[in-house]
Amino acid sequence: MAQQVEPLRNVLVTGGAGYIGSHVVYCLAKTRRYKVISIDNHHNSHSKALSQVAALVKDELPADATEQDRQAAEFDSYNVDLTNADQIRGVFDKYGKGGIWGVIHIAAYKAVGESGEIPLTYYENNVGATIKLLQIMDEYDCTRIVYSSSATVYGTPPDVPIPETTRLQADSPYGRSKVMSETVIKDLCQSQQGRWLGLALRYFNPAGAHPSGRIGEDPVGKPLNLLPILAQMAIGRIKEDTLKVFGNDYPTRDGTCVRDYLHVIDLASGHLLALDALTGKDSKVFHDRLEAKFKAYNLGKGRGQSVLEMVEAMRKATGFDYKTQLTGRRAGDVPDLTADPALAEKELGFKAPQDLETMCRDLWNWQSKHPKGFDE
Amino acid sequence: MAQQVEPLRNVLVTGGAGYIGSHVVYCLAKTRRYKVISIDNHHNSHSKALSQVAALVKDELPADATEQDRQAAEFDSYNVDLTNADQIRGVFDKYGKGGIWGVIHIAAYKAVGESGEIPLTYYENNVGATIKLLQIMDEYDCTRIVYSSSATVYGTPPDVPIPETTRLQADSPYGRSKVMSETVIKDLCQSQQGRWLGLALRYFNPAGAHPSGRIGEDPVGKPLNLLPILAQMAIGRIKEDTLKVFGNDYPTRDGTCVRDYLHVIDLASGHLLALDALTGKDSKVFHDRLEAKFKAYNLGKGRGQSVLEMVEAMRKATGFDYKTQLTGRRAGDVPDLTADPALAEKELGFKAPQDLETMCRDLWNWQSKHPKGFDE
Repeated sequence: MAQQVEPLRNVLVTGGAGYIGSHVVYCLAKTRRYKVISIDNHHNSHSKALSQVAALVKDELPADATEQDRQAAEFDSYNVDLTNADQIRGVFDKYGKGGIWGVIHIAAYKAVGESGEIPLTYYENNVGATIKLLQIMDEYDCTRIVYSSSATVYGTPPDVPIPETTRLQADSPYGRSKVMSETVIKDLCQSQQGRWLGLALRYFNPAGAHPSGRIGEDPVGKPLNLLPILAQMAIGRIKEDTLKVFGNDYPTRDGTCVRDYLHVIDLASGHLLALDALTGKDSKVFHDRLEAKFKAYNLGKGRGQSVLEMVEAMRKATGFDYKTQLTGRRAGDVPDLTADPALAEKELGFKAPQDLETMCRDLWNWQSKHPKGFDE
Repeated sequence: MAQQVEPLRNVLVTGGAGYIGSHVVYCLAKTRRYKVISIDNHHNSHSKALSQVAALVKDELPADATEQDRQAAEFDSYNVDLTNADQIRGVFDKYGKGGIWGVIHIAAYKAVGESGEIPLTYYENNVGATIKLLQIMDEYDCTRIVYSSSATVYGTPPDVPIPETTRLQADSPYGRSKVMSETVIKDLCQSQQGRWLGLALRYFNPAGAHPSGRIGEDPVGKPLNLLPILAQMAIGRIKEDTLKVFGNDYPTRDGTCVRDYLHVIDLASGHLLALDALTGKDSKVFHDRLEAKFKAYNLGKGRGQSVLEMVEAMRKATGFDYKTQLTGRRAGDVPDLTADPALAEKELGFKAPQDLETMCRDLWNWQSKHPKGFDE
């Protein structure tokens, strides 16, 4: 008797070609339980990322892969803009009412500093577009959402490590756009007697790359985050050997800011656990479809690294002789953003087991194989 | 030598045909300093309201009115929907870049209970549309806004009377949509070095009508607020004589909920003071165009009335023999929402001098002249 095979579930991933998105798409496709539909406007991503993911998934297919397995390794990809409702509706229309099982909504503008300069653009892209997406989902009876939130929703938290119960008081338009979107989704899930189920995943600091080195972080323009900067310095894409360190008088181990870095593959795996929770059955999170349901989870390791510790770890991974130059504190920087990941572990079964060394090695593997990112 | 006449300033009023909107339009037109452009989709308003306002303003023109005075008494009115960006852009296009001096943004869905049932609709209309409106304003160099906020932003306030410094923690999607819109406007005003100026007016409980009885509150469908309910009972539009009172065990004078009622003409006058503040010169609020600027003000009297006190006041005004039936508390009701109006008085010169008796008399004057509202 042939083995019973569950049909593939269509899952739409917004921002599927981005750094986090491409690793999430990889993890989904790998399960051979989901058919990925990616939408991305390539504002801060590369269309080549998705073809790389597809090739990677195919190469990793086992010899006895079924036809359905092969279908899961292919995915649909649309170059559309989330602020264009007609384009989004067009994608949902292709799959029909009930045709898309759930959405992982990652696409957003994400530069904290820039959000203070052009807040309206951030609110339109991150909040207005989310409201519109939810409306279109509702029209098409697609009522499960995993939302990419961020540790920035906590602003300057009173206690570290940070539990999810911490009061949300983001201190940038970017962070506030994440709080607002979470709020809209929460209110939606609390209406209509549980027609909707939603999870918000509050990302701490994802880093590293798939160990194959075939996908990784390739920011458009100048990188703004510590790890991509260090990687691009080591590969010579940034033609400097000195890193500016913003402040060494914070109340941390060595005075520099501490962040909770986790491997991007671990982070991406969290989305699979979130989808499992949204199935509603055998879920520790949602016991009853009739109860209004929304939950937010920290995705972090629960251990932080300082700027200087990260520089040292990258020195080991790359062999590059980083120099550091101390400058004053940067406005808006928070001393320590370390997650309390207990809730995600307890209710989703989430863990971020990969260590700092692996993270830096995988990042360097990607960067040294792709000195110019996807564009070479 | 002829007297120097300042040219009329074009001010766009969203929701101009609604209860508050029509009284604001009246006050603006009366000054003969502003040319009103009203937009409304008549979701909860009547197109006839604006023709009534126009007739009223013309009738009140002095004998020596100039041609410009007569122009100010006419206004432009568009039947457009705020969620339709093309329609809004079309209106701005008629006046060209810089052609609209400022916007008073009143249009919103406003039923607290309904907002819990259809939150997405509320977020689209009240937040998504506001973001879009601000973007279109920016495109057309229209960078002054007076935003209609609400006492609901305070949720259940820890202290009464409520100062503006109270932490915002609305407890309905409606209230949260007001907090979000305030936040978006505030972030916008704090960006781009003061290109934008914004004021949020947090309305307490407007009541009454223009003393002529030619405009007033005429909710579409069943009225949800105390005063319109009492007025419609007295006129026989609601065919009952018994008012349900939700709870008499609150920590207030007589155990029923206390609200800060102010005359709608006083509330509307506050918008003129807000426009004065936005001129930037001779303003106690905005001293320097180069400083990033946003402020929120309570518009209330600073004195509250209980449900039973309002019933008694309406009995005096109408002669109707109201009966009351006590039922349990209603979820979401707050014991006391009374404004601390000191900041608005100090910085805007705002006062709400008209008393309870006048409010009820003017409401009854309107209702008895228009038993079926604008539709008779």
